[in-house]
Amino acid sequence: MTDISSSESRPVLRMKPKMDTRRIRFGAPWVWANELVLDRRSKKLVPGTIATLEDNDRNPLGTVAVNTGSKIVARMLDRDPDVAIDAKWFSNRVQRAVNMRENMYDAPFYRLIHAEADGFPGVIADRFGDTIVVQPNAAWAEMHFDLLKDALASIDGVKNIVKNAAGRARATEGLDDVSGVVLGEVSGLIPVEMNGATYMADLLGGQKTGLFFDQRESHAFGARMSKGATVLDVFSHVGGFGLAALAGGAKSAVCVDGSAPALELAQKGAEAMGASDRLEIRKGDAFDVMEDMVANGVKFDVVICDPPAFAPSKPALEKGLRAYERVARLAAQLVAPGGYLGLCSCSHAADASRFREACDRGVGKAGRQAQLLHTGSAGPDHPQHPSLAESGYLKAMFWRLDG
Amino acid sequence: MTDISSSESRPVLRMKPKMDTRRIRFGAPWVWANELVLDRRSKKLVPGTIATLEDNDRNPLGTVAVNTGSKIVARMLDRDPDVAIDAKWFSNRVQRAVNMRENMYDAPFYRLIHAEADGFPGVIADRFGDTIVVQPNAAWAEMHFDLLKDALASIDGVKNIVKNAAGRARATEGLDDVSGVVLGEVSGLIPVEMNGATYMADLLGGQKTGLFFDQRESHAFGARMSKGATVLDVFSHVGGFGLAALAGGAKSAVCVDGSAPALELAQKGAEAMGASDRLEIRKGDAFDVMEDMVANGVKFDVVICDPPAFAPSKPALEKGLRAYERVARLAAQLVAPGGYLGLCSCSHAADASRFREACDRGVGKAGRQAQLLHTGSAGPDHPQHPSLAESGYLKAMFWRLDG
Repeated sequence: MTDISSSESRPVLRMKPKMDTRRIRFGAPWVWANELVLDRRSKKLVPGTIATLEDNDRNPLGTVAVNTGSKIVARMLDRDPDVAIDAKWFSNRVQRAVNMRENMYDAPFYRLIHAEADGFPGVIADRFGDTIVVQPNAAWAEMHFDLLKDALASIDGVKNIVKNAAGRARATEGLDDVSGVVLGEVSGLIPVEMNGATYMADLLGGQKTGLFFDQRESHAFGARMSKGATVLDVFSHVGGFGLAALAGGAKSAVCVDGSAPALELAQKGAEAMGASDRLEIRKGDAFDVMEDMVANGVKFDVVICDPPAFAPSKPALEKGLRAYERVARLAAQLVAPGGYLGLCSCSHAADASRFREACDRGVGKAGRQAQLLHTGSAGPDHPQHPSLAESGYLKAMFWRLDG
Repeated sequence: MTDISSSESRPVLRMKPKMDTRRIRFGAPWVWANELVLDRRSKKLVPGTIATLEDNDRNPLGTVAVNTGSKIVARMLDRDPDVAIDAKWFSNRVQRAVNMRENMYDAPFYRLIHAEADGFPGVIADRFGDTIVVQPNAAWAEMHFDLLKDALASIDGVKNIVKNAAGRARATEGLDDVSGVVLGEVSGLIPVEMNGATYMADLLGGQKTGLFFDQRESHAFGARMSKGATVLDVFSHVGGFGLAALAGGAKSAVCVDGSAPALELAQKGAEAMGASDRLEIRKGDAFDVMEDMVANGVKFDVVICDPPAFAPSKPALEKGLRAYERVARLAAQLVAPGGYLGLCSCSHAADASRFREACDRGVGKAGRQAQLLHTGSAGPDHPQHPSLAESGYLKAMFWRLDG
């Protein structure tokens, strides 16, 4: 491995002649294969190698991480071409990320590193009090994982670090999927307080039973319209909207999900809140359960659906939009007169206006008129890089339906 | 005047042959002149007349208000063509609006009626505790103002009603500009609590010293990033962001505005909060003041600019975007390393992505890198009609700048 802490010994990656470098100079963090001179020497660079990016006239543009096996061949680490990517660099960036979250949140439970927007391309880290779950989803972060780990370990109050290697992006970067505890000890469930609710997080269980911070602000909005209400939370996972609604004073909540382990965590959360008498869990296919409820004329004051990504990519867009429309149509039929409807999408490919149109169509087909009250997105612990509009993938829309 | 409480005696307004009525059937609330058969009889209808809208085959589409002198010739009042537009109709709609606000807000200070989205085309009403300020900005609402007033007066806890006729839309509807107290008594300033701050509202003073509820959620976000911070609130009006920041624990706030009466109200609000030692007011042109601060190297932990609409209409768009860029460029230069920047737009013509691009350019020209933390809009007391995307005019974006 080359000495990454010094710029002198670094390889150089050069952009093609006549390539417009303004995009990079204005802050774009990714450089594609077709923009670069990829000769035999650069193709030999070990994935994750730190290099200096230059334009074709040998003017330095910054310090990048290289992976010629990936579609994103160079990821901008620092606009300074001479910066040392060393322990201090990692610890400065981590501390910057911590400072912002400490400004914004009362307790140390948040997304701590949100990839490019936090200056760590391809790296995700979530903080659960004294424990951090980190996902090094790019080759450079895997290669320099010890520096990253040490920087995270030096945060005040952090004792345990879990490496989660389940991200699909790792395969495209040529990385393994070996997860594990890399610092301290982690076992059992961690209670996480958000919006007055208690969520039980299984940090070693992976996606199925993990906890996501990105819907926190929308959970709060859902809770705000749930005082004294009967609430249906479809695709509830570990109880995101349902438990927040109970904490906000809902009369009752029904959580529907296909995953028994996730519903079990919702149940445990409600028990920890002393609210298990107000929670009902129902395992099943969300569409089947909603069809069944519609057939039986069941109504709720508030219905919220937070499905998985139906349109994760452009080819899946039209099919995904039809699925969102179907969710909206079923859900709107379950809303009592004058009640509220919340519909969410975490699909990159369906932007806010396409998603909203699909929902409007579904609500219309259910024969309901609606007012749009609120459009929410992820909280400030999920910042967006100005050049990466697609990082704003999360949409949560809330309507009030006719009386 | 025809008897508006019964559908039998109503005039009929008919759509042209082969006109696509799906837009109307799917809920669009406006019908344009080019879609309608406007014969001598219909042109004689007094502006504000209630009529039945029919397609060209005489199938009824709903109950509309007619104004052939306006660009919007018919405004949908009710999808039911036989409904009586009487005291009960007004009171049902008002009560529906109240119910939603009571669900969402702890205190009776909110936008109570937000025009089409609340089923009252062209009508705006804001509630300040026991006092309502209502703007009947369409001919039908002026014609039937007594029914509207009585419905508002019947809300629990309402004692006073002010009619505000200063809206520019009134002239295009052929209405006068005579404002006044139409029920009870209103005099002096009303203290309004929002986000822990106290705002002083001069309900008779008009736009210059009135109070707007549409930025409440963004004020809250601004306050969240202002704990212990020095804050600059440019285009502060009566202290919207500045006072919320002080309530949220800001070390100090400087409010800049061109209006001395507005700044005086900001000062009085701070006095009511016991925070006047932390507030500085500065009267002047916002651009001049910011240029001056930049020249003197002044920095703040948080800078928020909430300017008037620079791009109120499509012809003003490009010029407006340049003004937003200039605001962003100046403001970004005033943000301390690692500090926060908030920029708002209430321009209909500049949508969120155009506004954001203008801001990104300005921040870039100031030589700063940024993370986008939050995009806010008006709260749920400003619902949107699904068919009127332009009703989502308000954008508030918050960035953290480089350290």
